[in-house]
Amino acid sequence: MKTEIIVIGNEVLLGCVTDINAAFIASELTKLGIEVGKTVIIPDEEKVILQSLKSGLERADAIIITGGLGPTHDDITKKTVSAFLKRRLVLNDKVLLDIQTHFAKKGIRMPHVNTSQALIPQGAMILDNPLGTAPGLLFEEEFGIIILLPGVPTEMKTIFTQAVKPYLKDKAGGNVILSQTIHTTGITESELYEKLQSIQKTGNIAFLPHFTGVDIRITVEADTMENGRNKLTKVSSLLIDKIDDYYYGSDDETLERVIGILLSMRRKTLAVAESCTAGLFMKTITNVPGSSLYFLGGVVSYSNVAKKKLLKVKEKLLKQKGAVSREVAKVMADGVRSLMKADYGISITGIAGPGGATEDKPVGLVCIGISDDKSTYSKKFNFPGIRDSIRKQAVQAALDLLRRRLLGIEKDSE
Amino acid sequence: MKTEIIVIGNEVLLGCVTDINAAFIASELTKLGIEVGKTVIIPDEEKVILQSLKSGLERADAIIITGGLGPTHDDITKKTVSAFLKRRLVLNDKVLLDIQTHFAKKGIRMPHVNTSQALIPQGAMILDNPLGTAPGLLFEEEFGIIILLPGVPTEMKTIFTQAVKPYLKDKAGGNVILSQTIHTTGITESELYEKLQSIQKTGNIAFLPHFTGVDIRITVEADTMENGRNKLTKVSSLLIDKIDDYYYGSDDETLERVIGILLSMRRKTLAVAESCTAGLFMKTITNVPGSSLYFLGGVVSYSNVAKKKLLKVKEKLLKQKGAVSREVAKVMADGVRSLMKADYGISITGIAGPGGATEDKPVGLVCIGISDDKSTYSKKFNFPGIRDSIRKQAVQAALDLLRRRLLGIEKDSE
Repeated sequence: MKTEIIVIGNEVLLGCVTDINAAFIASELTKLGIEVGKTVIIPDEEKVILQSLKSGLERADAIIITGGLGPTHDDITKKTVSAFLKRRLVLNDKVLLDIQTHFAKKGIRMPHVNTSQALIPQGAMILDNPLGTAPGLLFEEEFGIIILLPGVPTEMKTIFTQAVKPYLKDKAGGNVILSQTIHTTGITESELYEKLQSIQKTGNIAFLPHFTGVDIRITVEADTMENGRNKLTKVSSLLIDKIDDYYYGSDDETLERVIGILLSMRRKTLAVAESCTAGLFMKTITNVPGSSLYFLGGVVSYSNVAKKKLLKVKEKLLKQKGAVSREVAKVMADGVRSLMKADYGISITGIAGPGGATEDKPVGLVCIGISDDKSTYSKKFNFPGIRDSIRKQAVQAALDLLRRRLLGIEKDSE
Repeated sequence: MKTEIIVIGNEVLLGCVTDINAAFIASELTKLGIEVGKTVIIPDEEKVILQSLKSGLERADAIIITGGLGPTHDDITKKTVSAFLKRRLVLNDKVLLDIQTHFAKKGIRMPHVNTSQALIPQGAMILDNPLGTAPGLLFEEEFGIIILLPGVPTEMKTIFTQAVKPYLKDKAGGNVILSQTIHTTGITESELYEKLQSIQKTGNIAFLPHFTGVDIRITVEADTMENGRNKLTKVSSLLIDKIDDYYYGSDDETLERVIGILLSMRRKTLAVAESCTAGLFMKTITNVPGSSLYFLGGVVSYSNVAKKKLLKVKEKLLKQKGAVSREVAKVMADGVRSLMKADYGISITGIAGPGGATEDKPVGLVCIGISDDKSTYSKKFNFPGIRDSIRKQAVQAALDLLRRRLLGIEKDSE
């Protein structure tokens, strides 16, 4: 089965919004072994929509369209596709009720314009949208399949996963393509490339560098799901073995999830003191549902007053070493651990920029401390980039330091 | 002048990497008044590249291509376009030296494969790449302009800004297209649509809903920059007037920036107590460089122990009303304000889910408190969606509550 994706919307085409829908749909289709031939991004214009739809149907078995299903005048996707298929739009009571219920839950009267979203082309299969007001629509025609999805990414993803994916999987059959993403952190792309040079020929391997680490994506094709899984496991085991302790997880696994599992298993608790990252570490730790089991809380000590009052950093030390120093990071980690009576204390203090640098302390300098009942340790980093990326790299490094401490794979010596 | 964008790369088409190049190029072209007709994302396949290039040149005056200029075997863009234009590839000494220098700076010997990047099609204009090894290439042909740029976003952006933009600006001349984005929060898309119905015909207006608010994008076309600015100001003033206090800023302005300006102007300070959002509010406030002028710090009170110990929430109140209640939110806001000796205290307590709900307290229930030396107030919200979007909506609502308090546009009565 061959597909094409059409993304409709002036705001996407003109770059006001970066499209993330096509990438999601394409990677999901690839997992099913369904070929994606092309993605086009086009304006909310009847003529262009019709032209793209027609030429797409000449090449592909199914066309997936996102965007332009909203209630306002510039949303013309449904109208245009219905006209192309010569289908009348009919008010659907069930959909209307869904939309009314959606607003009722929010405690809002349904605005009149939303009625238009309950107009459904005759013969269309309705794909429920539990998060919004525009349902997805599916047309199974002689010349191909046409699927319309809303442009709001959360709504699109939900409808795609719940309805479109099982439908297309059933239609496609054939070979399966499986892939796995292996996450690493603390090592550069070229170091990793050299480490893995001997086994790069064993499969389709791609390096995807991000500034918080390098992902490695393995893709295999096989006749059955089982053979595919075996092939994938063989390659990924080889790779993970070589990557050693820079590897922290695969696919949906994140550093914060890995840490959550380690802390839960050991029945240990965590408290955090953040300065330059100002809450981003704690926000990340609590991305994991149920993190209240091991995360007690913490302090954002953006001002020195907060460092002194809550974390017991001495005025003298601040003057001698400066707020961004390994010494202050250690006191902060100890301080928050004792304040919250936690098993582990983590601290981050640094200069995120653009201001705040001095002659010997540049933008990007970050000190991270870790404390438990046995020892306290701190480490100094120099992160490249701007405010936002420096803060993200600092959080990633702090998470990795905690992971290594929990696994006992980093020495505590300074 | 009309353009089309072609993004080449299996990684991008299959969704392993989300393309951000097309959005950047399109928004830059739009600012120059250059029309972007379409963006296509295609694989590293000669046949598809040729087909897209040919059909693009039938519709557009210039085709901008990104990706596929790397040194490895799957990078075929340069070779394919050269063959299409019947140009021989010739080793260019200047480009070769640039590439060698690039590696020398990094202290690495140039790998042999990179020599291929110094092969330049005859008659191509070379666009220097100061950040990488693949130069951009520009062909000015009778039937149109073809521009090749590398796929690495930082390299592409630099070459585009330094060489392509001035070149195209010079070629295009003609009308300018200007746009402005107006940000609103606390009002739904449909309510906003109804509010603005009377003035929607005055310009090209698009509604862009996000779950933290609705943006409105106005686009105008004019013969001169000055006339364009006047037209834009006229439409945006009309809109902002109707939107009233749901409007908080335009274009790059964010709620946290607006709050930063208000707090700085009034020389007031802020402290924050967060429970379910666990640092996301403080991270957001400190997105603004220089926020240490008014943001003192705060507490993440994920556990009740932290609420009691640091924020002086009484055990009795927690038992009577529960941690997620307007009453506890008020005590938290007062507590953190007094702990940090700040002028304003903000608190957020809620159930982000998926667990933690009770019969009368569903997932999405969030209470936000605000405290200053005159009064303390709290407000209850029910946010739809999942953990991540509930937390983002809670932060946005808290920011907006603070903005309204600073502007004196919300009553403090309960």
